[in-house]
Parts: sequence; structure tokens; C-alpha cells
Amino acid sequence: MMKLFHSKGSCSLASLIALEEAGAPYEVVRMSTAAGDQRKPEYLQINPKGRVPALVTERGILTENVAILAFVAQSFPEANLAPLDDAFAFAQMQALNSYLASTVHVAHAHKHRGYRWATEESSFADMRRKVAENETEYFRLIETEYLKGPWVMGEQYTVADGYLFTIADWLEGDGVDSRQFPRVHEHRERVRARPAVSKVLAEEAS
Amino acid sequence: MMKLFHSKGSCSLASLIALEEAGAPYEVVRMSTAAGDQRKPEYLQINPKGRVPALVTERGILTENVAILAFVAQSFPEANLAPLDDAFAFAQMQALNSYLASTVHVAHAHKHRGYRWATEESSFADMRRKVAENETEYFRLIETEYLKGPWVMGEQYTVADGYLFTIADWLEGDGVDSRQFPRVHEHRERVRARPAVSKVLAEEAS
Repeated sequence: MMKLFHSKGSCSLASLIALEEAGAPYEVVRMSTAAGDQRKPEYLQINPKGRVPALVTERGILTENVAILAFVAQSFPEANLAPLDDAFAFAQMQALNSYLASTVHVAHAHKHRGYRWATEESSFADMRRKVAENETEYFRLIETEYLKGPWVMGEQYTVADGYLFTIADWLEGDGVDSRQFPRVHEHRERVRARPAVSKVLAEEAS
Repeated sequence: MMKLFHSKGSCSLASLIALEEAGAPYEVVRMSTAAGDQRKPEYLQINPKGRVPALVTERGILTENVAILAFVAQSFPEANLAPLDDAFAFAQMQALNSYLASTVHVAHAHKHRGYRWATEESSFADMRRKVAENETEYFRLIETEYLKGPWVMGEQYTVADGYLFTIADWLEGDGVDSRQFPRVHEHRERVRARPAVSKVLAEEAS
């Protein structure tokens, strides 16, 4: 059985949703990144990067949402979580996933994790002031360019939907009103209403 | 014929190497990110993100190295540029590609592009001071954990090798002596010596 190392409220929710949507056999190891669990020696044995998610499989350990999401989709093809027989469509899906990881999530991380890239408190404050502006720019692009509707890839729900949901759910906390992006906003509610997502979120809240 | 929008010295070199290694029919549209070509209206029609690379295919336009690299590997399976029949190995390769995009490249970007995440000159200077330290930490992990040798994935060259080469080639410019990472250093020279890479680099220099 696969084992996902996950912290509530973090981006590893995307991998958790994918596993649940896939009907995969898995268990969750709950961590707290707020408490610094990801920096503890026992976790660094699992993922030396000191980040979530990490997925323990029978073949070894995988990290990075972009990789885990595609792995889950490819490992459970009957769940139809990615356009596996269409390299172009698969790449479009991966392009959004990679944008979420390398641009959108990175913008969000400058709110509380400025210490990754700078040392001075004044720099951290400066970074915090730009988070909402950046997220607004990036979600405007997602709204107009990268969300085909009703799902990211059109008629078929994919692992990109759970990832977009995960990141979009941070907007209000970062001072961005997601209602200025009605398609993203409706997409988020559509994902939240899915049985697999409802189940995962109920477990998060319990 | 596919068309790659590429800027010399930028990360789009990874996609260019992949196309050449694949034997794909392509042409290069040379841009200068230093001159701001990526922000010109005609390019924003191609890639509204205002970044390179962008790959124009007969099906549409793809962005993000992580997506383009996998697309090239899947579209030219006879070139053996990814473990296409092994979802776990494919995910390991994608995990390194995603790490390069979302962590290593992002660390590098704080040297000259601090304006993406902050506003004050003092913050930019603070960020610049941390670039070499971050890259050292990330390349130490690559050295010890993510480079199987002789290639990233072991005996088989993949698109991840050209990407690692592209990013590792920035180390000296960022004040990091790559000889402290002998396996990365040797890997870089091994990639540089490949016929496809030599050809691409000669065209870059001409």
C-alpha cells in the first residue's frame, strides 16, 4: 500500500486528492509543516528536500506534485485522470501543473517563506506586499487561458483539477478575492463538490 | 515543422537540446530575454506568460520545460529520451525536472529577477547574496541523491540530462564552483560532449 506524507493546508493536498480520485490503495501520514515536521531527521530520510509531498511506493519514494500526479494517473488508467493516449493534451495538462508548481506556488511561498531567498526582515516584508499582486496576475492568466471548462482540460476531470483547486483555495488567505476570476471560482466549487474531494476534505477537518 | 522560441543562455536551451536529441523536425526562433523580447506584444500572443520556452506544434502551443521535455520524449519514442513504459521511472525523471524548474531555477532567478517578488533595491541585494548558498544546497542534493550516473536515470540518457546540464551551466556565473560536485561536473562534460549538444552549442556561439 502506498503511503503519502501530507501536511494539512499544504500543496500535498493535490496528491492526496489524486490518490482518492484514482481509487488507489493508500494511507496518509499526517505531518505539520507549521511545526517543522518536514525538517526532522526521520522525514529527511524519506525526502531529503524537507518538503511535502512524498509518496512511498513499492518501487521507491517519489517527490514533487507534478511527478506524483502524473504517476497516479498513469498507474490507475481506468480512473481517467489524464489524457494518457494523447501526448499533446498530456503536455498541456503538465504545463499547467508545472506553472502551478514553479510560478504560482512560488509566488505564494514568498508570503511566509521569504527566508528561503533572503535574510533581512525588511526583505520579507517587501516580498509579502507583492504576493497578492503576483497571484492576481497569474490567476488572471489561468482564468483566460488555461482553464478550458468545466474542467482544466475540458470535459474530462484530470489530476490538474485537484492541483488547481488546492492552490486556488489559498487566494483569500493571501488577500485576493477569487470572485474576480469567476471561472476559477466556479471550478473550485465544482471540484470541492466531487465525492472524492469532499471525503478528503472531511478527513482534513476531523 | 515545430518552432521553438528560445533565448540564448536561458532555460529554453533544455527544450532545444531535447528536440535535437530526438531528431525532431524543428526550427528555432531566436529571441533575447536580455532585450525584453519576451514582453513584446507579438510574443505575448504566443506565450502570454512572457517567458521562454514556447514550442509551436501543429496541435497548438506548449510552454514550460517540464511539459515540453516529456512531450518531445513521448512524440519521438524511437529516440529513447525517457522511460516511457515505466510509470515509476518516468515519475522519477519528472521529479528531477520539476525540482529543476520550481526550486533550482527559481533560486537562480533571484539573482537578476528579484523584481518578480519584491520592489525595493535593498531586497534585491539581499536576495542576490543568498543565490550561491541556495544553489550549493540544491546541487549537493542532486550530487548525492538524484544523479544515478552516468546519466540522471542511470544507463539511459533522457531529457532530464539536457535540463540538468542547462541549469548546472549557470553555476560559475552564480559564484558556485561546480567542482565541489564532481558527479554533477563530470555529468555536465559528458552531456556537453554529445553530438547533438555540441551542434546546438556551436549554433548558439555562432
